[in-house]
Order: sequence, then structure tokens, then C-alpha cells
Amino acid sequence: MTEPLGIALIGCGTVGSGVARLLLEQPERLAARAARPLVLRRVVVRDPNKQRPVRLPRELVTTDLETVLRDPSVHVAVEVVGGVDWARHAVLSLVAAGKDVVTANKALLALHGAEVFDAAREHGRAVAFEASVAGGVPIIAALAQGLAANQILSLQGILNGTSNFILTNMTERGVSYNEALAEAQQHGYAEADPTLDVDGTDAAHKLAILAQIAYGVNVPVAAITRRGIADIDTTDIRFAGELGYTIKLLAESYLLDNQLALHVSPVLLRRHAPLAQVRGAYNAVQVVGDAVGDTIYYGQGAGQMPTASAVTADLIDMAVGRAQRTFQTLRLWSGGRDRVKLRPPDDVRSRYYLRLLVDDRPGVLAEVTSVLAHNQISISSVIQHEAPEEEGNRVQLVIMTHTASTGAFRAVAASIDRLACVASPCVYYPVAD
Amino acid sequence: MTEPLGIALIGCGTVGSGVARLLLEQPERLAARAARPLVLRRVVVRDPNKQRPVRLPRELVTTDLETVLRDPSVHVAVEVVGGVDWARHAVLSLVAAGKDVVTANKALLALHGAEVFDAAREHGRAVAFEASVAGGVPIIAALAQGLAANQILSLQGILNGTSNFILTNMTERGVSYNEALAEAQQHGYAEADPTLDVDGTDAAHKLAILAQIAYGVNVPVAAITRRGIADIDTTDIRFAGELGYTIKLLAESYLLDNQLALHVSPVLLRRHAPLAQVRGAYNAVQVVGDAVGDTIYYGQGAGQMPTASAVTADLIDMAVGRAQRTFQTLRLWSGGRDRVKLRPPDDVRSRYYLRLLVDDRPGVLAEVTSVLAHNQISISSVIQHEAPEEEGNRVQLVIMTHTASTGAFRAVAASIDRLACVASPCVYYPVAD
Repeated sequence: MTEPLGIALIGCGTVGSGVARLLLEQPERLAARAARPLVLRRVVVRDPNKQRPVRLPRELVTTDLETVLRDPSVHVAVEVVGGVDWARHAVLSLVAAGKDVVTANKALLALHGAEVFDAAREHGRAVAFEASVAGGVPIIAALAQGLAANQILSLQGILNGTSNFILTNMTERGVSYNEALAEAQQHGYAEADPTLDVDGTDAAHKLAILAQIAYGVNVPVAAITRRGIADIDTTDIRFAGELGYTIKLLAESYLLDNQLALHVSPVLLRRHAPLAQVRGAYNAVQVVGDAVGDTIYYGQGAGQMPTASAVTADLIDMAVGRAQRTFQTLRLWSGGRDRVKLRPPDDVRSRYYLRLLVDDRPGVLAEVTSVLAHNQISISSVIQHEAPEEEGNRVQLVIMTHTASTGAFRAVAASIDRLACVASPCVYYPVAD
Repeated sequence: MTEPLGIALIGCGTVGSGVARLLLEQPERLAARAARPLVLRRVVVRDPNKQRPVRLPRELVTTDLETVLRDPSVHVAVEVVGGVDWARHAVLSLVAAGKDVVTANKALLALHGAEVFDAAREHGRAVAFEASVAGGVPIIAALAQGLAANQILSLQGILNGTSNFILTNMTERGVSYNEALAEAQQHGYAEADPTLDVDGTDAAHKLAILAQIAYGVNVPVAAITRRGIADIDTTDIRFAGELGYTIKLLAESYLLDNQLALHVSPVLLRRHAPLAQVRGAYNAVQVVGDAVGDTIYYGQGAGQMPTASAVTADLIDMAVGRAQRTFQTLRLWSGGRDRVKLRPPDDVRSRYYLRLLVDDRPGVLAEVTSVLAHNQISISSVIQHEAPEEEGNRVQLVIMTHTASTGAFRAVAASIDRLACVASPCVYYPVAD
């Protein structure tokens, strides 16, 4: 058996503890899969006395990154410290010190991927990041290797488990966003400050990483249009259900006329569509390639051991030598090769769901629909129920449109909001087809 | 850019033509993904004058395998000739001549994998076979690499698209097996002789390959219990539906007490289970690992371009050098390391669906259920509808049991068949839980 692969953990929180558990508790299994031992040599933490879900041998623990940088027996460092600034500093120092890096840090890669990958290339090191998207589901490898013969035509993903957990509870049990969020926090599916999860930022980070691999483009996260779930009303979930749809937070990218559309938004999916079936904290990614057709990858999108599974797969790939070859071949974030242009968000086309609170009097439907008609947006279905007594003289009006460009639709929605018969700003979501 | 990878196609039928199309029509794309050109150097066919769905440059076509064996500019041969005997001879000759091999031939690997892999190892060559299971879905890579940190606990797959196409039509449109088969043949989803697809043999071949990777055991195909779909009655599909289940042909393996259970059978799946949603000619594999939890991989299980996508991914992996490292590390079919024992089929435990045609008279339900009770098999639900006039004095009785061993259940079914009140041999299927 060849030389052991020496490993340092940078950070030992939830995911780091999971990786430590696999390395310390399953050495034979991992050595068999990698054809050489995987040996944990250092664990860098802020507080060595903190209680952790894994028992670390005392002599491995240090608070000083320098000890890893100077240790020639450490070949690969696992960055699971989270955050962006210190993680960036650590990763750049690690590759400069000759260490390969495995990271689960999607924010770091989405925001500073180009810098990190250039630095790694400059020092002849590799970076692997399977755990950065969709937890233990090997979606990075699927795109970079399994589907490498394809032009990827589209990607659609449920990439944020917190949001999907909240939406699933709102849909299945009729609870409000705030109740569902509180429950997600109780179950550990949402942070005390859930902003980055529920406002679409986390999903946008992951989409940037997937799009980078699928299309070879360096996408600034700021260029990804995003809309979160915090203002979703159960009224819209109910109407969507009545129409045969489920609302999911989708991260989407697709190629059209050599332009790449990228966005994160709540979307109405047909109830029987595969992604509409994804419940709770699960993730799933639907990838359409020009040769393979449509494929789906599904599993737990977060959590200690699913994420540790992906990190450890990267460590095995490093031990076998595959990860280095993949990294050399992919030329990720290397810039200068972006042949694909981003599609202006206003040009993205979609069907739309539109809900209005309108006066319950003759002529209102004609007023609203004539605004749509004047703008060449045609209607596929309408729901208006008899007004319940308590709502006085107002009713909910729901319209599903045929395809329109986002820009045109938004202008129309603004015009409709200005109609005297419309009581409050309309609510709208794109509809997947 | 480094030296091109020289490729020979052995066989140019449906899949071979698809691979040739990718190589001839997408040279830039493939060179970018592999960081070196992929060049088609030879195509070995039986009849060079046959019409094919791809235009092959005349000078590449030969009928003589020898020209490939002797050509030093061919580095990798793609075996897509199908069948077992000649394919075996060809692959053994190719590795002996120093060629790496990519194959889509599940029967060859399931029946002669040990011999092929030993020969490759002996000559220092690699064999890659992503296309042998689930078409373009990268399930081999997922098991061998993406989930490499896991002990795989169970695998459940819809691995035969023909059977799934037939069952989907029987379920959704109520047509008989024979009608659905005829339709599958019209659509090109079933061969003129569909035996290997519908009797579970093809799914068993694929399960043997997956189990080999997941558990490191060399499973003789004959040891996989299998039952096909040809005798499935729409009556059972209807009753299953009434109980909230869908019948699917599942290939399953799971570890219990360090014993590996392996079987292919029609199984009742809860209607909302992810695998129950897989329609038409699609394949899906649910893999549960001890770290990652449950994951699912889904896509087209056959067809020209999906299969060509997987073959070409293997070629890219060969060009990059990953496939060789994976092959060296996996030690597939190498024998002597089988620590896992096969579970005797009679010891496999399951819930059961049982349908009987019984006399419509007092005491019959008591007679039948007392046979189950005497054998400690408890009942979870029963359906008996009022007898329709035209069936005279007989009724269908459907019983869902709690868990029982296959051996015990089979003995009970035989006892029930001997009851005077039972008009014809009972029908039973396992129920997934």
C-alpha cells in the first residue's frame, strides 16, 4: 500500500465533525476505497476546549493554521470553517503552502472562486468542492464528468433545503411562512438568522457554481436575479394547488440563442413534475443535456453526515489522483474563455401566475384582461370564486398567462396595479412548463 | 495540447452510431472537456455496406478486428457490438493487444466480468462501463466515486426501461400485458424477442454490476432470484392502486446482518414513493448509504444518445486518466475478497400482497386468514368487494400482510392454494416499505 494521504481539517463544526468521524471511525473502509490510508493529522479550531460531536485525539488539535502550513505530512486541507473572509485567507495560504484543498464553502467559491482557483493553479495544487452544492449528492461530478459529453441545455435545482422545508410545510399543512420558519429553526433546518437561505442568496451561490461547471462561464453572483420565499402567502400556495401546481424555490439556468439565463425564484411547478415531489430538506437537480436528455439527482442537501460523505469522496478522489486531473482539465473560473453571454433578465420568457385583489363589480375582469390583451399577453386560465361575505366587496382574481417576457410582464403588472379596481399590488410568480 | 486519444468502435449499431456522431460532430467540445482531442481511428463492423444513422468516413470502416489490434494509434476500443461470446473474445483480444476498453455490455460484464477484468489487470489496461447500467445516468461513477465514503446499505432500481414502459401503460391506461408489449415493440422500446427484458434477466445483469461496485462482491447472476412481468394481470395493478400502491419491476439489494439480499421482482411501491413516479422507458436507482442517507439518480435508461453520452464520458475519463486510476483502485471482480455472504432467498423478509379467487360463502375469510395466523403472518389490510353478478359465486379476496420471510410466505401460499374454497392458485407480490 502506498503512502498515506495526510489530512488537516480547518474548522470542526457540524460538517468538520462528520468528516472527522468518518476518518477516525472508518479507516479500513476509506483505505480500501482509496487504495491508501487516509490519515487525519491536524484539526484547526478556534476553541480547543469546546464540546464537539466527535472525540478528537488531543494532540491533533491546534488553534494555529501555521502548524498545518508548515507540516509536510499534511497533503490535503479540508476547509469547513464557513464564512468568507477568513476562509479565503486560509485557502489561499494553504495552496501557497503546497496543500491541495477540499472545501464545502459555496459562498467562498461563488464570490472568490476565480481568485482561489487561479492561486491553486499557480501553485500546482487542486481544489475539490463536491460538498458545496446539494450536500452528499454527487452533482458536481455528474456535471464535470458523467455528463461531460453533453452541451448542458438547462439546470433546474431545489438547492436550498431550508426554503424547501418551509415551503413543504406551508403547502402540506397550510401554515404561514412565519410558523413554518419557526418550525424549521426548531428542527435545526434554519439558522437563527435565516436571511441567506430564504432570500435566495444561498441558492444563487450554488447556481453560480453549477453554471460555472456546466457552461464554463464565470458568473458574478450579483448577475443572478433572485427572489426569496419570505413574502409567499398561503393564499398563493392554495390557488396554485387548485390549478394543479406546487410552489418551489427553484434555481434555474438555461441556454437560449447562446445566451444564458440565470435566476432564483419561487416558481409554480406542475404537481406531478419530478421536482414538485421533492419534500422537506431534500435537494434535487434536474439537468438536461443534448445527448443524455433529462436526468435528476436527489438527496439530502445538508446535514452533518451527507455533507461529510461528499467531502470524504473528494478526499478519496485526491488520494486516488482523480481530483487533481479533474481540476487540471476543468480550468474553472480561469476567465478569458466566456463565450456565453448572460441573457438580460427582462428577456427571460415564462408563463406567469398573477393574483389580484379586485373590486367585486361588473367590468373588472374586462378591465384587467384588456391590459393583458393590449400587451399581447394571452391568458390560459382564470379563477374567481364567489366572494366570501366577510371580505366585503372585494374578490381574489387569479390569472395564468401564456408565455411572456419578464420585462413585458412586469410592465403589465405595474399597469394593472394602477387600475382603480385593483385594491392592492398584484402578486405574481413564473410558471415552469 | 497533448497527444490525441485514438479510438476504435467495435460495432456500429444504435449505440455505436451515437458515439460516432459525438466524436465526428463535436470534436471541439470533446477536446475541451478532455484537454486533448478524441479521434475516431477505426470502426469494426460486420457489413460495411449497411445503412447507418451516421456517415462514417469510408477509410475508417473495416470488418477485421485485427486491424484495430495491430494499430498503435488506437488507444481505447469501445465495445458496443452486444451479445456475449464474440464480444468476450473481442474484449480479451483488445486488452491483450494493449488497448483500454469502454463497454456498454451488461451481459458480458455480469457473466464474464471476472475474466475480463483479470485480463485487463494482467495487461495493465483499464475497463470502463458507465453505459452498462441506466443508460446516460452516471450511476456507476456515483457508486464508485461520489458515494465512496459510504457503506451502501441498499440499492433499489428500475433498471429495465422496456418493463417500466409496459407497466406504466398497463397502470395508466389499463391495457393488458400483451397490448402494452405490442405498443412497446412499435415504439422501439422492446425487441422482437423481449424475453431478457421482461423476465428480469437484463435487470439482474445490471444489479450484479451495481452490487459488485457497491459491495465488492462477485455475484453469480444465477444467484439473483428473479421474476418477470409477463404474468402480471391488470387485476393486480387495479387492486394495488386501490390500496395506494403502484407495481414496478424492481432490482433490489440490501445488507442485513452482513448478508446481502439480491432479487429482481415486481414489487408494490407506495404511490408517492419516488421510484413509483418513474414513468415510461426511464430508469432510476435509489441508493442508501450510511453517511449520505438516501439518494436517487434518474434518467433515460437506454436509447442511442443517452447511452452514447455515457460511453463518451468514459472516453473522456480515459483521455484525462481518471478511468485508469478508478479501475486500478476498484479491484472489481478480483475475487478472494468476498467478505459479504449472500442471503438465502427464503430468508429475505417482506410484506406481501396476496390475491385469491375464493368461493363466495360464509367462513371463507376465516379459513384463509387462519392459515396465515397459524404461521404467524399478520394481516395489515383486506379488500373484498361485493361479487359482480357475472362472476357467479366467486369473489376476489386481496390481503396485505405484515412482514414475513419469503420462505414462510411461500409455504403459506401453497397451503392456501390447497384449501377447497380457493378456486385457482393465488397471486402474490412483495410490498416495499
